This record gives sequence, structure tokens and C-alpha cells, in this order.
Amino acid sequence: MHPLHAFFTPGSVALIGASSDPERIGGRTLRFLREAGFPGHLYPVNHSGAAEIQGLPAYASVLDIPSSVEHAIIAVPAPAVETALRECIHKGVRAVQLFSAGFAEVDAPGAELQTRLAAMCREAGMRMLGPNTLGLLNPSHNFYATFSTALNGLRPSHGIVGLATQSGALGSATYGMAALRGIGFSRVIATGNEADIDVAECIDYLAQDPDTRVICAAFEACKNGTRLRAALRKAAIAGKPVVIMKIASSDAGAAAAATHTGLLAGNDAVYEAVLAECGAHRARSLEEMLDIAHLCAVLGMLPRNESLGIMSGSGGIGILMADHTSELGMQLPALTADSSHALQALLPYAVPANPFDTTAQITAVPDGVARSIEIMLPPDAPYGCLLAYLAHMGLSPQRFQTTEDRLIALHRARPEQALVVVMLADAAVRQRLEAAGIAVFADPSRAIRAVAAAARMARLRREMSLGHVPVSSTTQACPAAAGLAPSLTEVQSKVLLHAAGIPTLPEKICTSASEAVEAAQALGYPVVAKIVSADIAHKTEAGGVALNLHHAQAVAAAYDQLRSNAAAHAPQARIEGVLIAPMVSGVETILGIHMDPVFGPMVMFGLGGTAVELYKDVAFATAPLTPAQGLALVNAVRSSALLKGWRGGPVYDLHALAQALSKLSEFALQHAEQLKGIDINPFVVQTQGGFCVDALISCH
Amino acid sequence: MHPLHAFFTPGSVALIGASSDPERIGGRTLRFLREAGFPGHLYPVNHSGAAEIQGLPAYASVLDIPSSVEHAIIAVPAPAVETALRECIHKGVRAVQLFSAGFAEVDAPGAELQTRLAAMCREAGMRMLGPNTLGLLNPSHNFYATFSTALNGLRPSHGIVGLATQSGALGSATYGMAALRGIGFSRVIATGNEADIDVAECIDYLAQDPDTRVICAAFEACKNGTRLRAALRKAAIAGKPVVIMKIASSDAGAAAAATHTGLLAGNDAVYEAVLAECGAHRARSLEEMLDIAHLCAVLGMLPRNESLGIMSGSGGIGILMADHTSELGMQLPALTADSSHALQALLPYAVPANPFDTTAQITAVPDGVARSIEIMLPPDAPYGCLLAYLAHMGLSPQRFQTTEDRLIALHRARPEQALVVVMLADAAVRQRLEAAGIAVFADPSRAIRAVAAAARMARLRREMSLGHVPVSSTTQACPAAAGLAPSLTEVQSKVLLHAAGIPTLPEKICTSASEAVEAAQALGYPVVAKIVSADIAHKTEAGGVALNLHHAQAVAAAYDQLRSNAAAHAPQARIEGVLIAPMVSGVETILGIHMDPVFGPMVMFGLGGTAVELYKDVAFATAPLTPAQGLALVNAVRSSALLKGWRGGPVYDLHALAQALSKLSEFALQHAEQLKGIDINPFVVQTQGGFCVDALISCH
Repeated sequence: MHPLHAFFTPGSVALIGASSDPERIGGRTLRFLREAGFPGHLYPVNHSGAAEIQGLPAYASVLDIPSSVEHAIIAVPAPAVETALRECIHKGVRAVQLFSAGFAEVDAPGAELQTRLAAMCREAGMRMLGPNTLGLLNPSHNFYATFSTALNGLRPSHGIVGLATQSGALGSATYGMAALRGIGFSRVIATGNEADIDVAECIDYLAQDPDTRVICAAFEACKNGTRLRAALRKAAIAGKPVVIMKIASSDAGAAAAATHTGLLAGNDAVYEAVLAECGAHRARSLEEMLDIAHLCAVLGMLPRNESLGIMSGSGGIGILMADHTSELGMQLPALTADSSHALQALLPYAVPANPFDTTAQITAVPDGVARSIEIMLPPDAPYGCLLAYLAHMGLSPQRFQTTEDRLIALHRARPEQALVVVMLADAAVRQRLEAAGIAVFADPSRAIRAVAAAARMARLRREMSLGHVPVSSTTQACPAAAGLAPSLTEVQSKVLLHAAGIPTLPEKICTSASEAVEAAQALGYPVVAKIVSADIAHKTEAGGVALNLHHAQAVAAAYDQLRSNAAAHAPQARIEGVLIAPMVSGVETILGIHMDPVFGPMVMFGLGGTAVELYKDVAFATAPLTPAQGLALVNAVRSSALLKGWRGGPVYDLHALAQALSKLSEFALQHAEQLKGIDINPFVVQTQGGFCVDALISCH
Repeated sequence: MHPLHAFFTPGSVALIGASSDPERIGGRTLRFLREAGFPGHLYPVNHSGAAEIQGLPAYASVLDIPSSVEHAIIAVPAPAVETALRECIHKGVRAVQLFSAGFAEVDAPGAELQTRLAAMCREAGMRMLGPNTLGLLNPSHNFYATFSTALNGLRPSHGIVGLATQSGALGSATYGMAALRGIGFSRVIATGNEADIDVAECIDYLAQDPDTRVICAAFEACKNGTRLRAALRKAAIAGKPVVIMKIASSDAGAAAAATHTGLLAGNDAVYEAVLAECGAHRARSLEEMLDIAHLCAVLGMLPRNESLGIMSGSGGIGILMADHTSELGMQLPALTADSSHALQALLPYAVPANPFDTTAQITAVPDGVARSIEIMLPPDAPYGCLLAYLAHMGLSPQRFQTTEDRLIALHRARPEQALVVVMLADAAVRQRLEAAGIAVFADPSRAIRAVAAAARMARLRREMSLGHVPVSSTTQACPAAAGLAPSLTEVQSKVLLHAAGIPTLPEKICTSASEAVEAAQALGYPVVAKIVSADIAHKTEAGGVALNLHHAQAVAAAYDQLRSNAAAHAPQARIEGVLIAPMVSGVETILGIHMDPVFGPMVMFGLGGTAVELYKDVAFATAPLTPAQGLALVNAVRSSALLKGWRGGPVYDLHALAQALSKLSEFALQHAEQLKGIDINPFVVQTQGGFCVDALISCH
């Protein structure tokens, strides 16, 4: 039995802080529970000692209730919560919802109290939702345990979509919109302050809940990346689509980032990467979340590929749908030869292409619409989903009846083929089609976007099954690494990375101009010279780098110049010397580690220059990476085209690059406890091999 | 009187091809006209000679009708159309709609017939809509002159949005979706094959039509860019928002592009530029088009800036709305001091910021919602639009009544402030608010996107009034330029551009290695050497360029190498010699002219390297450009940041760049008839000045 099970189908519920006033929180909740016909025992509790509340026998304390109580809702002011909780524990309550506010969301003492109460519950083995939660719904059990005023105007129906949300109001907005569209829910859970139960645990619950087939979740921040990842993977393994609204995307993230990589990570890029790795779709609006969830719920599956078949009675709408297909990176494969011939026989004036424009001729062919769709869905259809634009046919139910019957029969015969109809339709027509597994959308663009999201989710999940099992660092004990220290120079950083298996260049720290010249001669010209100081993290800005030195004179001059630049820039800095290294050519890339406070070490890749700085063309992935996953990370940035024979140029050593990313990721995981972040900038990729040319490891 | 006026409020209409069968085209149209209660005279015409059709006296020919006929609808097979048209001309009909298909959309003979019929109508002064049109609607006149089966299930109501669309089915889809949302139309016009009337002329009509306050238009291709520009500007001057659906965006455009610029232009970038220049918004879905049109129709204005005020009873929804604001490049300015103080007094626990999260405290304050909104809309509010998220309040009309009344009173008192409410609402509540000028959206994301589009349109129109009056080249007579020829070398191209006022470098064509060395010495090292041949357009690919030559030896060697490379690459090419020019450093940019078949000369700007090739970071603008407009074009690309002190680097001479763009645009306009396109690649911008280093002019 899942630890959250006790919350959803209780036989007995105590409402502590119940009120006779049906508008106050404790009264409203009681009213909603009764209006919806909750079938279990309801025990209003109010310390006033009233004998009855809203017609039910009432109790001064939960301890006074003569029978056992499985579930308690606490809606008393914050100062009274502790006593109420103690009494619930004493009573043997298994699950408690804390509607009360005034805790971590208000101030530090509130946060402290919240932590203490959560610890108390944990110790007693009583699970707690909230505080500051808007409650939960289980429509199949007629259990509407919330004080959301949304229930004044509507009541979410029973369905197969489960929703877990940090913000209760965002949840109400979602099921409100859903109710107006006739989308039902298996469970709705608002987690509020998440002192005990968080959205990740709710996803974990929904992943195993047999009533839930599709999962929606919304949160502002996740506290435990390991739990979220595990829950999302569990949902993926259970074959349940997951659509996430991660809000607060404009938050620039921890400004205190120690590394450049950390700055680029912000808040959002990491969530994006983690959700994709775990096979979840990130939606950008409540409506998009509902569109995708509803599509998945109706289809009962995800499209098996990212190709579409499109049939349209309107050339214009067909073109619009093809535009979106292309924008979303999906394909429109050619029709099978059999389909082409059959369509040509049916509609000689139409060109049997994809998108298929039936032309107005279809109106002259009996059952032309249904027959075209049947032809376009052979068992060997190359597309994972067929979208048929049927204009407003669904607004004339009688005229549409035959088509409707044939489509339902077709889908019954070919249940493995996803079929989406785009048309205006009466609610009854839509409901009949959707009950039969055929999704109906009014707007062609929204239909395609939802299908694209579902098809991408299917792909992400196929990729997951290829063996990407991220190991969370945050739960591992990490041995302290020799050499890791809060302040490391470039040279020290590179020594550590070299030991970790990342190629570096031969180089030498010199403390005189003559020593520098000697080193240059030994290494071979051209060389570079760089100041070495643990106190100067940004050498270029300090005038601490001289590139492309071709002869002894230049090396000697550069040595002196670098030392005097450093002295001018940072008079207090301890200078270890000047590093002389070979000048190598190739493509400059940036490899980084961002130590995410939630998700642990994340590997970053991007190309040097404007790709990263101007176009933010970077990608993140969870450490560790196999070399194959390293390669996938490289391919995820647009500018990787420059490494692969760009405009007739050379093909660079992607294998060496992928290997370096993999080694870097392992190093980061091993030293996760000490690391703040790593920048390898640049890692120069050559046609054979590649080198870490400069690096900065930042540690606690 | 506008030439299209006669189409919309006819006193008498002949329906040629009328049928007794209410399902056939000619019968259905008659049925719709009668069902809607068209108030004028209706004359069914059918050559069968039936005495009555659908209960109305019928005629064998339009010439048999005893009274005059203003408007004729022709719904006979294509071969019978010519006679029908002749008879209409004879009868003195002013406006004819050609529902018949089988013309240009079918084959070349059909196109020929269509052209001939259009010429015949034009000559007779009779305007023609179609052929292959789905018809038009004027709800205010109960004139539903269409055979769209959409009218079987719904009838668009009267409103202030005008819709012109090439694809009739796309029009039906739009007003179908609109009807289900209660959005009405002033006019709906489907232009079909556009033998005479096109969407641009319809926009021109709607721009002056007093019944129309907002214009929507949809098309696949525009045939006459001048007309479209003029119509859009007329609408902008009339203060009517224009929302355009340009479909077929995935079409890669004329593959036969003579220049690189032409390739980059494709189909879509030029439309994007032209629509923005003319102050129109391009929507990406029918739903988006309707959202924006409806918003504008309800508000009766465009927001006066791109700043938003946001009030939300839910922290989560407030954050979501702030996310979108930031994504869409809009601002959230701080509240005024007065507003802050007043909110603090009203809701002491809430932080008076923007977005303003009222916190749950608001439920304890009488009329808290209305009072907060009132406070947030002072006469000096810094934002052009206030969005208030009111959850599901509109689903409980009685509880909401006071708030509703206060909001309506507020808007009446401050009609210049745009107010948008985001909430779930009963239709009646929504209608009352919208009738009062307060827009209501259900989904917060869609609300913000619509507001952002409207606010951007307002900005585009402010920018238009700053003097950007593009002159269309296609209507100008252009004198032939001396020197323009189908095949021009780099040197010839640069001579012409130099004469046009674009700075070039001193350089010399040399025909021997010693001459090359002499030229290099005269110009000063370093120099570049480039092969000169009208037969070699792409010099780099031909091994025809040697950069950064520092001394005589290198120049002599390069001379020989270039000649032998050219001989190997293109043995037939006539080689004029080798060009020796100074090697200049700076930022490489690309200036181009795309001769658009619809819109005439379009100026392109981008930065060299990956900015253009990989990230498609280019911008287009209609020629001619003033230097100020040239600067705006530069600023429109993301990579222009590299010219403006990027990461502490130099600031380049934007003035010189803008000047060159302006001169280039004038040159293009002057020679529009002969030009196929121009690439200046690179134009090297320095900190003082800039030079056209390489150029290719392509001519007819």
C-alpha cells in the first residue's frame, strides 16, 4: 500500500475547526464534503463544544469522537495547530491535511514551527499534507476535501487524469478549466508548504494509482531532485504520460553561481534537461497542460513516432497544419502506395499526398470523409497519428452520424493507430468519439501541438530505455579528493582533470623570462603565456593571457607584460608564475559542471564564442554520462553543426569530446560534496583528439 | 463609395444556378439567405425554366428579372459561367460572386478562362469575387451569401470584427470557432481565386467600413505587395488593429534565388518584415487570431505601452503570468507610490509589488478584489494594461455582482486604461463585462499573449508614424543604370556600389605576380589577393582567395596559387586577373538586397559567420531605408550586440553601417527593374567607418 493511500478513500474524516458558517473555511469544507455526498463518516470538531454543526453531531476534540478516525482535516488558526495534531496522533489518525496557514510562507518563526510539527508527525508515523494546502479531491469516492471557492461554481468530475500541484490556486484554475471542457480527474492534490508530502511524492503515488492513467503536476520549486527523478521514471515505466508546469521560469536562478556554467544553468535549463531525461513534457500554459493530458487520456497511448498523416477538406487548413508540423520538427511521410491508389480511385481530382487535400469533390462521394480516413489508416501507416480536419461536421450530429459510426468502428478495428479529429462539434458528438478513443480538437494548431508533445514524450521514453539511468549524487557518500581545495589555480585544476582522464597539454610554470623562453623552446612554437594565481580567476580580464607567441623575444616580452599587468590589476594577488603552453588550434568548446542544489551535478556543453554567450546555445544533462550520452549532449546544441564538416570544413573528433564529457561527469559525481562547479573553457577539439586548455574547478 | 460597397448591402440579389434541393450548392445558398431573413429582393435563376424555386418566383435568365439587380451570385458549372456573366453585365449588375470552381485552381486552360472572364468584368465595370469563392457574410444586413455548410450548424452574429480570407474553409473555421465563443463579425469575405478582388482590397474596404473596428485576414500568398502595404497602412491610420494569418510559412520560398540573401529571405522572413512595418500582427493560429481580435474589439483600443500591471489572488498564477511577461519581452514596472501605500493600508500582509499577490487576506476584506483593482489603476498607472486574475469568481454571478459593478464603474471612469480580467465566468457575466469594455479570458497565458500582441501592434504603429513611408519600387519607372549587366565581377559590382555612396577599398586588378607585388607595396601590407572572373561567383570555394599576405614573397606566391587554383576549378572561366586589396580588420557583416517578387527590394542585414548561417539571425526591411531605419534594422538582429562594446570590446561605427544600408537601399530601388539581388559580404565595420570588401550584384 502506498504511504499516501490513506489520504484518498477514508472511511472516516474528522474536520477540526468545522464551522456552522458555510462561507468560512471550516464551514465551506464541510459544506462541500456534504454537497458532494461523501459516503464515509464525517465528524465536525470545534473546541467551542457545539453539539451539532451543519446538522451533524459535533465534538470539542478529535479525542471525543467515539469511533476511529482515519483522516483529519485541520482548519484552525496556526497557534492551535500543534494541539490539534497531537490529538490526531493520539487518536491514531493516519493522514492529516493542514489547511491552516501562517507557517513557512509567512516568516522564520512560522517556518520553524512548521519544521517542528512535521517532525512530530513523522515520528508518530502520521503523514501530513500542507500546511497551507487547499486540500485534495478524489471524485470517484465523492471526496472533495477542499475549501477552494471553485467548488461554489463547479465540481470536477471523475476521470483518469491525476493532478498534483504545489499552488492550490493553480490547481483550482486547472480543474476549473478542465471541468468546463468536461475533463475529469482521478485525484487532485495541493501540497502547499510541503512540510512532509511534496509534489514528487504525489507523482510517485499517482504513478502506482490504478485510477490514474495520465499525470499532471505543477510546481514552483522542487526540493528533492532525487525524489522527483525517481517518481517521473516510475510514471514512465508505468506507461503514464506526465505533463509538468514548472513555473517561475523567469527567475534567473541562484545569482551566487560560482562558475560561468552555473550562471548559464539558471533555474530553467536544468529543469528542462531533467524533465526531458525523465520522459516528462513541460507545458507552458495550463491550457497546454490540459490539451496534452486530455489527448493522452482519450488516446490511451502515446503516438508511436513523430510523423503525422494529415487529411483536410480545406487546402488552407491542410497547409496551416503542415506549417505547424514543420515548425515542431515533425515529419509528414508519403502515403503508402496502397493508400495512394485507393485515394486516387475514390477522389480522382485530389492529389494523393500528405497532407491530403480531399478537395470539394469529397462532398459528392458517399461517405467520402470516412472512406478517406479509412484508406489513410492502413495497418502499415507510416505515421504514428492521423489528424483529420472535418471543419464543422460535428455541429450537425444527424448528418455526421454515419461518419461518426464508421470512425468509431475503424478505431475499434485498429486501436493501435492514434486518430485525432479536428472539428467543431456538439458536446455529445465529441463525447461519443472521445469515449471511443478518438480525440477531438476545435483548433487545428492546438491539436498538432498536443500531438507533437505526446509524440516527443514517447521518443524521450524510448531514449530513456536505452540505458540512461542517472545516479543521484546527493545520496552518495563522496570521499574527499586529494587536491580539491576552495581556491585552485588553472594549473591545479588541470592536474586534477588530467588525473580524471581528461586530456591536457604539456605546460610549465615559469618564474623568469628566461625560464619561459626555455620552456617555449622545449614545447615548440607557437606557445601561449598565462598568469598563474589562485587570486585571479578571470585571467583575460586581468590582461593575464598572451596568445600565439612565435619566437623567444615575444615570449620574454609577454612574460614581463603579464607580470606587470597582474601587478596593476591585482596588487595583492599571490603570483605563482607564468604558464607556458603549446598554442593549439581547433574548435573551442566549453565543458562545464553545474552543481545544482536540487538535482546535483549537471554537465553542460556549448561552443565557445557567440554560441554560448549570445545565443545561449547550451545543453545540460545529468551526471554521469556515458560517452554515448556525451555525444547526445553535444548533438543537442545547434552549433555542434560546426564540428561536423560545416560548409565543407573538417570533421572534428566527436569521440574525444564525448569521452571528455563522460570523464568530467564521473569526476563531478565522485567529488559532488566538495565541488561548487567546473568550467573547462576552452576544451579545444581537433580532428584527432582534443585538449582541456584552460579550466577552473571551484570547491567548497 | 468604396468599390466593394455594392457587395455588402444589396437591395436585390439574383442567385444564378438556384436549386430546389436545399443541399446542393445553389439550393443551400438560397436556403441560408432565406433562413437568415435577408431583407432585400431574392431572385432565383435557373435555366431549367422552373416557375418557382424554394417557394420564390424563379427566372430562366437574369435578364428575365423584371426589376433591377444589384448583386448576383453565380453557382453554375464552369462552362456556363461566361454566359451568366455576360447576362449580368447586360443587366447592369454591379457586384458578382462566382461560387463556381474549375478555373485557375484546376489547370492552365481554367486559369486562362478565369483571366479572360475577369478582364471582361473589369471592362464592364462589374466587380467580381472569386471564382471558387465560398461567398461573403454581412450579419448586420442578414446577408449570409455563402454555401458553406458551416451555416448548417451555426450562424455568425453581428459584431465589429471584419474577416477577409483567401481560403473560404479557413474563414468558416474562424467564424465557426468565433461563433462558439460569442464573437461576432461585421463582414466575412472569402476571395477564392482572386481573379479580381484580393484580400488586400478587402482589407482596404474594411479599413474604411464604419461597421468594422478590427480586421482579421488570412492568406496563403499575396499577389500585389503594393496593394497589401497600402491597405494595411490605411487600416493603421484608421486606428483599426489588423491580425493576419499568413499560412504556407514552411514553404522555403523561391528556390531559384540568385543570391544568398534571396535564399535567406525565403517566403516568410519578408512577410514578417512587411507586416511589422505596416503595423499588423501576424498570428500563428486561428485561435490566436481570434484572441487578439476579440481583445481589441472589447477594449476598443490598443494598450498604450508594453508594460503590464498584474494582480493575482494566487501567488502561483501571478508567477506564471510574470513568466510570460518576461518571455514576451514586456515589462512589469513598479507600482506608483500612492498605489503601494493604499494597497499596504488595504492588505497589510501582502507585499505591494508588481505582480501584486493579494494573499488569502483579501477574502477577509470587504470588496477587497474591486478595491485592489481600483487602487492599481490610478490615472498615472505606469502600465498600459492591468490584468487581474480572479480565479473562478465569474462562475458565481451573485457573489460576484458587487465586484462586477465596481469594475464596470471603474472602467467607465477611466476608459483610457485597458483592463483585462482572467477568470472562469458564466457567459452572462463575461458578456456584461465585455460589453462594458473589460476583456475576460479563461486562460492566463492566452490573456497575456493577446495583450502582448496588441501592445506590440501599438508600438509598431507608433514607429510607423515616425516617418517610415516605404515607396514601392514596382510602380516606379526605373532608368537603366550604366554598368548593370547580367554578369558582373566583384570589381564591377564594387565600382557600382562605390558610385552609389557605399565605401569600398582602394584595390587593383593585376595580371602578373610582379604587378601584384607592386600593388601590394603601394597599398601597404598586409593585403589580400582574390581571383577576378565573371564566371566564378563563389571565389572561396574555388580556392580564389588568399588572406593576410604580409610581404612580397607571399603576394607573388599567392598570385600564382590563385591562378592555378582557378584553372583547376573552372578551366573554362575567363580570368581577368588577381585583385590586390588592403587587408582590413573589423566586424564582418552582410548587407543584402532581396528582390521580392511581391514586395520589391528588401534590405537584409546580418553578421558574418555563424550568426547568419547557423542561427538565421537576419532581419529584413523594405527599401528605401533612411539611416535611422538602417540603424533599426541593425538593432533588429541579436548579434548586433557584438558591435556595441560586447564584453568590454570596442564600439563599432554603427553610423557608417546604417549609412551604407541606406545607400544600398536607394541603389536597389533605383535599379529595381534590372536587379535580381545584391550580396555585400563582407561589409567590414570598423570603429571608424566601414568598407564593402566583397560584393556581388546579380542582374537580369
